[in-house]
Amino acid sequence: MDFRPEKLGAMRNIKLTVAYDGTSYCGFQEQRGTGLLTIQGELERCLHRLSGTTVRVIGAGRTDAGVHARGQVINFNAGGWNIPTERIPLAMNGCLPPDIAVVNSEDVPEDFHARFSAVSKTYRYAIYNSRIPDPMFSRYSYFVPKAIDFKAVREAAALLTGRHDFAAFKAEGSPVKSTVRHLFSLDVQDTSKIVELFFRGDGFLYNMVRIMTGTLLKVGLKKYPPEHVRLILEGRKRELAGPTVPPQGLCLMKVEYSI
Amino acid sequence: MDFRPEKLGAMRNIKLTVAYDGTSYCGFQEQRGTGLLTIQGELERCLHRLSGTTVRVIGAGRTDAGVHARGQVINFNAGGWNIPTERIPLAMNGCLPPDIAVVNSEDVPEDFHARFSAVSKTYRYAIYNSRIPDPMFSRYSYFVPKAIDFKAVREAAALLTGRHDFAAFKAEGSPVKSTVRHLFSLDVQDTSKIVELFFRGDGFLYNMVRIMTGTLLKVGLKKYPPEHVRLILEGRKRELAGPTVPPQGLCLMKVEYSI
Repeated sequence: MDFRPEKLGAMRNIKLTVAYDGTSYCGFQEQRGTGLLTIQGELERCLHRLSGTTVRVIGAGRTDAGVHARGQVINFNAGGWNIPTERIPLAMNGCLPPDIAVVNSEDVPEDFHARFSAVSKTYRYAIYNSRIPDPMFSRYSYFVPKAIDFKAVREAAALLTGRHDFAAFKAEGSPVKSTVRHLFSLDVQDTSKIVELFFRGDGFLYNMVRIMTGTLLKVGLKKYPPEHVRLILEGRKRELAGPTVPPQGLCLMKVEYSI
Repeated sequence: MDFRPEKLGAMRNIKLTVAYDGTSYCGFQEQRGTGLLTIQGELERCLHRLSGTTVRVIGAGRTDAGVHARGQVINFNAGGWNIPTERIPLAMNGCLPPDIAVVNSEDVPEDFHARFSAVSKTYRYAIYNSRIPDPMFSRYSYFVPKAIDFKAVREAAALLTGRHDFAAFKAEGSPVKSTVRHLFSLDVQDTSKIVELFFRGDGFLYNMVRIMTGTLLKVGLKKYPPEHVRLILEGRKRELAGPTVPPQGLCLMKVEYSI
C-alpha cells in the first residue's frame, strides 16, 4: 500500500487483476479505429463511463484473440476518479460484459508498470484428451483424441526448462531485441482427461507457449523423440519446431511482481 | 442389446447420449421453417449428411434456449444407415459443431422411445455464489453475489420433494393433462462458490426446475421462510412462486430408463 493522498489528481496508480473469457475478443490490445472488440477497449470504455475521464490501461500480457485470462494484471492512473480503491471491482463488474471481470484492486507506487515491472508470468495450456469431446470444454481447451505419451512429454518439457534462446519458438513478424528467455518451470498435469501444461517464465516470445505446446504434443504423439527438442532449440529456426496450437487452450494465469 | 439383424432396413432403433453447450441454440426442439438453430436440427442435419437418408430424432427432454445437457437421450431409426452402432459417436462428432457431442450409442428395442420410455430425469441448476463473477462460468451458471442461507434452502427443498401438484411451478402456455409430478430427490451441494441443485423426478412441467430454483433462492435470500413453500404448492398459482431463473444455469444431466 503506497497510496499517497497528496498525489491525488496528479497520479494515483491502480493495479487490477482481471479475468476474461477471450473467445469473443480480438485479443487484449486495443486496435484503435478498427471497431474490433478487445479486452483493453472494454476496460477503458467501462472506466470512462464510471470515472467520466479518459483512461488508458496498461496490460501485463497482450493475450491474442481467443486466449483467456484468470490473472491478467493492468494498471492505470485513477487520478481523476474519486472512488475508494476497494470498491473498484464491484463498480466495474456492474458495467463490464459477463465475459470480463475485475477480481482484485490495489494501490501501487507511481513507478509500477503492469508489463515492465513483471518478474514472471504463468500461462496454462489445456488439452482435452479423450476419444469423445466435451462441448463444455470446447471454448477452453484443445481437443486431442489420440493417446499421448506423457513420459515423453515430460522428458521434452525438462529440456525446454531453463534459460535458452527460444528463437525457434517465436512466430514471425514480431521483432524483439533478444530471443533469450528464462522458462522457470514447465509442469505437465494429466490427472484426468484435462491435461494442463503450466509455463512459468520471465517472459514469452510471440506465440511461444502455443509453439512449445505444439512441439510437446508432437513428442507426445511420437512424431519425434524428446531429445529432438534440443536440436530445435539449437537450430533457432521456426520451421524446426511444432505447429502453433489453437488459442482457446491458452490462459494467462498469473503475473508476479517483486513489489 | 436387442439388435435384431433381420429387421435391418425396416427398423433399427438407436439410442444416443448427447452433450451440448446450449448457449447458441434456440432450444432442443427443431422449429421447422424458421431457420433458427436448434440441437435437434443440428443432429438431424449431421445424420442426413452421414447416412444419406432423412432422419427424425426424438429427444427425451425438450431443453429450452440456452439450456445445456450432459446426458440428453435421443433415439432414431437407423434402418437405412449401414454403420456399426459403436462407430456412430466418432462419425457424428466429426461433423457436429464443437458445442454438440455424441457421447454414447447403443441398440435398443423397437418400442424404445427417448421421451415416453423415460422413468426419471435429472437436471442440475448451477449458481455461482461469490462477490466477484467468474467469466469462465458465466455461460454455465447464474451469478448470485448475495449471501445464501443454505440451511433454509435445504428446508424448503425438503418440502418440494415427493409427489405434489406442481401447478404453481409451471410457466404459462403449455397445456398438460396433469400438473402432478413426483420429485424423487432435490440435493443442494454448496461445497464451493459453485452451488448446484440436483433435481431428479419422473417428469418436469414447463420451466418447473427454473421456477423451483427461483423460489428456493428467495428462501435462501430470506424473502420468505422455508415453510412458505408449502403455501405455494397448495395455492397452485404461478404468481405465488418465485421468479424463473435464467437458462444458462440449467443442464439436463441424466435420463433413466427401466430397460
